[in-house]
Amino acid sequence: MEIQIAVAKINKYASSESGDTLEVVERPNGGVSVVLADGQTSGKGAKTISSMVVRKVISLLAEGVRDGAAARAASDYLYTERVGKVTACLNILSADLQTGTLVITRNNPAPVFVASGERIECLSTEVAPVGTSRNIRPAISEFQLEAGITVVLYTDGIVNAGDRYGQSLDVCTLLDSILEDQNPSAQYVADTLLAEAIRLDQGRPNDDMSVVVLRITNQETDQIRRMTVELPVAPIFPFLRNE
Amino acid sequence: MEIQIAVAKINKYASSESGDTLEVVERPNGGVSVVLADGQTSGKGAKTISSMVVRKVISLLAEGVRDGAAARAASDYLYTERVGKVTACLNILSADLQTGTLVITRNNPAPVFVASGERIECLSTEVAPVGTSRNIRPAISEFQLEAGITVVLYTDGIVNAGDRYGQSLDVCTLLDSILEDQNPSAQYVADTLLAEAIRLDQGRPNDDMSVVVLRITNQETDQIRRMTVELPVAPIFPFLRNE
Repeated sequence: MEIQIAVAKINKYASSESGDTLEVVERPNGGVSVVLADGQTSGKGAKTISSMVVRKVISLLAEGVRDGAAARAASDYLYTERVGKVTACLNILSADLQTGTLVITRNNPAPVFVASGERIECLSTEVAPVGTSRNIRPAISEFQLEAGITVVLYTDGIVNAGDRYGQSLDVCTLLDSILEDQNPSAQYVADTLLAEAIRLDQGRPNDDMSVVVLRITNQETDQIRRMTVELPVAPIFPFLRNE
Repeated sequence: MEIQIAVAKINKYASSESGDTLEVVERPNGGVSVVLADGQTSGKGAKTISSMVVRKVISLLAEGVRDGAAARAASDYLYTERVGKVTACLNILSADLQTGTLVITRNNPAPVFVASGERIECLSTEVAPVGTSRNIRPAISEFQLEAGITVVLYTDGIVNAGDRYGQSLDVCTLLDSILEDQNPSAQYVADTLLAEAIRLDQGRPNDDMSVVVLRITNQETDQIRRMTVELPVAPIFPFLRNE
């Protein structure tokens, strides 16, 4: 059995900084967690908020704190720091090898899709973003870790893609058609969803966009863990301008 | 310009837990850092130490602390916690978009290779692991971020591969031959080095092994950040046994 996680992420058009922050951390008792936060508005201010939230969550997860408790703590922390004036959308997706489960934590109104066999479930109960008030609760769903499951989650840049052109992305239908292919990789699923969202915004993303895909396959593995990061360096960086 | 980072990691043969811990984090002022620690011995105890060290370093880096200061802090912290009785080897590899440099921090006797054009430089000044005494200093090297650079670093499982069969891995020669290929991906470089180390240990790694490769290419990019994680789930996990 192998767990594949893929991320595809782009900044708002002509924006040098993304307000979305994403980190992947190892869980102290086995497994891995993906933490994604989208700070209110975009640019520098949003980045500060989203990275503050993600940092708090990953440091708690690394200490063995449960996902739900980490999300609550991040909410209280943001609420205290910013007196309830700024909010962030937060998702935590964990493959927990200690409990043998996938744990999906949502403080993000955007839905999360869980595909298994022919079925695609849409997790979309109403939740509040973190930092808005005291006593914010996350929605938590738990599934057995088993081969064949695909989980897709994303930030509101994907939800609102095409909005200004009177279009929108039907993630469920698109995901269904992608999964009909012969065992697509997690990265292929993430790339296809992001590409479609960018197309709906006519090539100029109207907001920061991040897509996370987790797949569990039952393919034989060589027991090697792998991680790849591709970081494009935008030509706006001063050290590139000097060239 | 694009920065590619790849990791390939395997546990000691028949060991359920790796004593090597690796995390990749975003730098608050732009760029990314890879933090790799190898705890003394192997298994659970080593894992505790290496994750303690990596956690300390990533939380400091996320707050904007410089790499060298983060390494010193991790050393003092480990020394204080374990009264100098346990040590860990530590490497930090950062692509810092604020300064436009690659920063390589070594508290690991294993060398780091930096290839650029036809030249492969071997960074191997003597350094102490962290936690051994007070006033441990890292060796720090800094290079301009420019296309064509490849950096390779690894833990002592690679250094000692083949030892018990009277063989050893000549990383420099192997790297030179891999880089002669047409623009190999960072993942290909990491996979090839790890595969060769495993082969020298006759398919049964005698220690935890981790390889990190960073490449800077000047290929046109689509401005999308990507990350992929492949996590094999060993059949030793109880929830798999129950199936």
